[in-house]
Amino acid sequence: MNCPDQKGIIASVTNFIHKKKGNILYIDQYVDRENKLFFMRLECEFVEVGFTATQFSQTFEKEIANSYSLTYELYAHDHRPKTALFVSKYDHCLYDILARYASHELAIEIPFILSNHKDLEPIAKRFNIPFYYVPVTKETKAEATTEQLEILAKHQVEFIVLARYMQIIPPNLIAAYQNKIINIHHSFLPAFPGAKPYHSAYERGVKIIGATSHYVTEELDAGPIIEQNTTQVSHLHSIQDFISKGRDLERIVLSKAIQLHLNRKVMVYKNKTVIFS
Amino acid sequence: MNCPDQKGIIASVTNFIHKKKGNILYIDQYVDRENKLFFMRLECEFVEVGFTATQFSQTFEKEIANSYSLTYELYAHDHRPKTALFVSKYDHCLYDILARYASHELAIEIPFILSNHKDLEPIAKRFNIPFYYVPVTKETKAEATTEQLEILAKHQVEFIVLARYMQIIPPNLIAAYQNKIINIHHSFLPAFPGAKPYHSAYERGVKIIGATSHYVTEELDAGPIIEQNTTQVSHLHSIQDFISKGRDLERIVLSKAIQLHLNRKVMVYKNKTVIFS
Amino acid sequence: MNCPDQKGIIASVTNFIHKKKGNILYIDQYVDRENKLFFMRLECEFVEVGFTATQFSQTFEKEIANSYSLTYELYAHDHRPKTALFVSKYDHCLYDILARYASHELAIEIPFILSNHKDLEPIAKRFNIPFYYVPVTKETKAEATTEQLEILAKHQVEFIVLARYMQIIPPNLIAAYQNKIINIHHSFLPAFPGAKPYHSAYERGVKIIGATSHYVTEELDAGPIIEQNTTQVSHLHSIQDFISKGRDLERIVLSKAIQLHLNRKVMVYKNKTVIFS
Amino acid sequence: MNCPDQKGIIASVTNFIHKKKGNILYIDQYVDRENKLFFMRLECEFVEVGFTATQFSQTFEKEIANSYSLTYELYAHDHRPKTALFVSKYDHCLYDILARYASHELAIEIPFILSNHKDLEPIAKRFNIPFYYVPVTKETKAEATTEQLEILAKHQVEFIVLARYMQIIPPNLIAAYQNKIINIHHSFLPAFPGAKPYHSAYERGVKIIGATSHYVTEELDAGPIIEQNTTQVSHLHSIQDFISKGRDLERIVLSKAIQLHLNRKVMVYKNKTVIFS
Repeated sequence: MNCPDQKGIIASVTNFIHKKKGNILYIDQYVDRENKLFFMRLECEFVEVGFTATQFSQTFEKEIANSYSLTYELYAHDHRPKTALFVSKYDHCLYDILARYASHELAIEIPFILSNHKDLEPIAKRFNIPFYYVPVTKETKAEATTEQLEILAKHQVEFIVLARYMQIIPPNLIAAYQNKIINIHHSFLPAFPGAKPYHSAYERGVKIIGATSHYVTEELDAGPIIEQNTTQVSHLHSIQDFISKGRDLERIVLSKAIQLHLNRKVMVYKNKTVIFS
Repeated sequence: MNCPDQKGIIASVTNFIHKKKGNILYIDQYVDRENKLFFMRLECEFVEVGFTATQFSQTFEKEIANSYSLTYELYAHDHRPKTALFVSKYDHCLYDILARYASHELAIEIPFILSNHKDLEPIAKRFNIPFYYVPVTKETKAEATTEQLEILAKHQVEFIVLARYMQIIPPNLIAAYQNKIINIHHSFLPAFPGAKPYHSAYERGVKIIGATSHYVTEELDAGPIIEQNTTQVSHLHSIQDFISKGRDLERIVLSKAIQLHLNRKVMVYKNKTVIFS
Repeated sequence: MNCPDQKGIIASVTNFIHKKKGNILYIDQYVDRENKLFFMRLECEFVEVGFTATQFSQTFEKEIANSYSLTYELYAHDHRPKTALFVSKYDHCLYDILARYASHELAIEIPFILSNHKDLEPIAKRFNIPFYYVPVTKETKAEATTEQLEILAKHQVEFIVLARYMQIIPPNLIAAYQNKIINIHHSFLPAFPGAKPYHSAYERGVKIIGATSHYVTEELDAGPIIEQNTTQVSHLHSIQDFISKGRDLERIVLSKAIQLHLNRKVMVYKNKTVIFS
Repeated sequence: MNCPDQKGIIASVTNFIHKKKGNILYIDQYVDRENKLFFMRLECEFVEVGFTATQFSQTFEKEIANSYSLTYELYAHDHRPKTALFVSKYDHCLYDILARYASHELAIEIPFILSNHKDLEPIAKRFNIPFYYVPVTKETKAEATTEQLEILAKHQVEFIVLARYMQIIPPNLIAAYQNKIINIHHSFLPAFPGAKPYHSAYERGVKIIGATSHYVTEELDAGPIIEQNTTQVSHLHSIQDFISKGRDLERIVLSKAIQLHLNRKVMVYKNKTVIFS
């Protein structure tokens, strides 16, 4: 939840839950003093409940949210969002996500993998996941997007992971999945946006390379950052070594960002993220 | 504050503060489910106050703490604890603390530096801080401790930092400063406790060395850990290199632990620490 | 190569290669002063060769190695060692290795996966790799080892990776694969050897956990360390979280150690490793 | 030393030293295949020497360097370069360097500290080091540089450390100290060059901040990178926290770069560095 910062908000919310016989399992709060905004993430359990989630939400809306101009989202603990994977030709992030999925590390359903190339279809087969081939060219971009939106709608997808998908996402797809498309960029943003960041990093002679996972917005590689990580390189490493070391970073950073999103620990505002602990 | 975990505790505390016209600046809470314990750290400000800290404390005791069997400590934001530095012959941690002190990074008063050797007296002079020389031998250990306790009492010391002080702290000094003596140990505890950890690390051929800051308890190097950090080493590094790389670790880990303690972010229980963010 | 440290050794070796019309691509050398030992790793290419690898080796033996009491190993650049994977029930390291194998990150052949449980057989199937089920009990330990040795011999295995294989390796298997069995231990050794290291780490209240990859020797978890890495934990993390965060460490540390071994960058002596860059 | 890559170079150099009865203590070599350049760093000792350093250098020039078009520098192991510290108002890097200097961690002589402000003069006094106050304004920039060059010449300075010196170095000073002026920039370059990088990092919402030490070249913050390091930040950190966390990074990165330079481990070419191990 978030709202303009004001006195008594924590007391009101915690009281409300207490009166509903809820038990607060976790509370984390943050105040952006500069912008006078209040953010809170709260987990609670209700032992004996005489109400549905919808009823709870309605009462909360009336008694609390309205008086504080509070925006909130409510999720059931066991909800597993339907998650689409978009890929192109690189398989390392895809393998990593599928292995974690197979090991039950990720609380998601993966209804399909979608790609603008056919190269990774065998991996989808290997994990028994439907594969859609939607080629994209300059000329067919609009139609491809329409097709993607149809597939997404058909499978009731709630969350999209771009696991090294090498196409720019068009505005209408972004609009349909606001803060629900996660990308992995293979540099320490804002250094080296755009194509071939490992080449640029090599050229500049940096001693550390990075990877960045962020929500997709219309401006390329400029969306709210969820997770970043770095690793050391030296003059001994060729561009090929940068790419190879970067693969491990990309895997870790993307899977960490997915986990944060799935656990509803990420809140977006002003193109930045609040990441609850 | 901490107490047995029970429903409604957050609501009660935040309500109490709200009624006192307080504004909550920060709240962080943690529940140890295994031991059914509740921990909370809260910062609040009171714009117009019609009460003293003591009065606030008394009311809180009566209205909240008693009913929840809640233990708490209350600190004024601008309190600068009197902090004694104990050293022996190594100067790197001492220099680091004094430089941060001189740069106003540390919200403390340093009434004196105490050592069992005279080597570092010139550094104390350089920073215009009184220096006590209290030699310690097997035979004079008890008297030395008495002398230390007198000096500490005379200066109303609240917090002791062992900045590579190479003597074991006796039980009566520990008892007088329960969870108020911080030590820096030059290994990644529990690996390599005791003397010469860098030598043992070298002997074992580890690829990473560490440093650990902890509260001092009667069992040597076994107190609650506040902060740890590590750095990479290789076969190229001699024991001397380990010691040299370790110096930077020790500086960083000790100063981080001091900061956490000063900001009242550390809570100790069951020989472990809760570190609030 | 390694030998007692002596003057002129680098000049002799590099001269020898130069005379054979070889081009040195990489040279890295290390002298252990304490033990007066010289180590060197050298990569070279021969454009026009009038000799076989065996002939080269024989000449080198006669002209250089003998006069310097030099021990050496010689490998062709494109050799892909036959590598057996031993697993039990945990699948994360197995998946990670197989994904890297499928992505051509690892220059090995995997003739089979062997386990004392049947749980991971479907994964072997998924990647079209033969699976051997060799159960081990106290009573059948000797026979199981015999069976393992037969399978290894049959497939001409050169290198064994214990990807969370939860059985102690018997001395005769270790002897057959001296410094050729890599294990991943889920702690920052020498802290927390043996079973349940995450539980011990949790109990001790450490702020950092680690993973260690080492060659297997007869003393449990005490072999030469190849690679270690660490990650931060806090009081917020349960034992389950430790295990979960540890999985990523284990994956990275084991795959790094495998790469170092495959690239012949690891030299073992006195239960320690020299890792060339 | 460096030269165009060619066969036999290592053999020739090591032979030369062997014939001079030298003992090679350390050799590290690197070939940039793209640009066909050979780099080598070599440490050797001569037990009985019948020649001076100059004589050695002349013979090496004649017998080796000329035939390979080899550029080299020769340093005596115990040479302690005269090092000037340039500062402005921030004291943390200055304190760190002076503490290391006082602890004999740095093999340098510091003949003076120079600043465009008087604020840090007391620290220079505290460590008994001469202090020059050279104010710089737009109008007096040229004269200030002349004065700086005179002071540098008078003290025979070989190496300059900009320990958060907040003025742009003019071309004639750079030319006089080519690859001998080290700066610390408080960001992970090439992200956030120029002024106020912590503010920009905060604005962008990065999850990691960094510091970069580099040789000063005419293009601002674009010189060859010597060392970089990073640390995690979160939404909880204010700009002030970024600055505070950054201080530790700056200290570590700058002192590491100084050590690398002092140990002659840095070789510059094509605006990049080779850092020997």
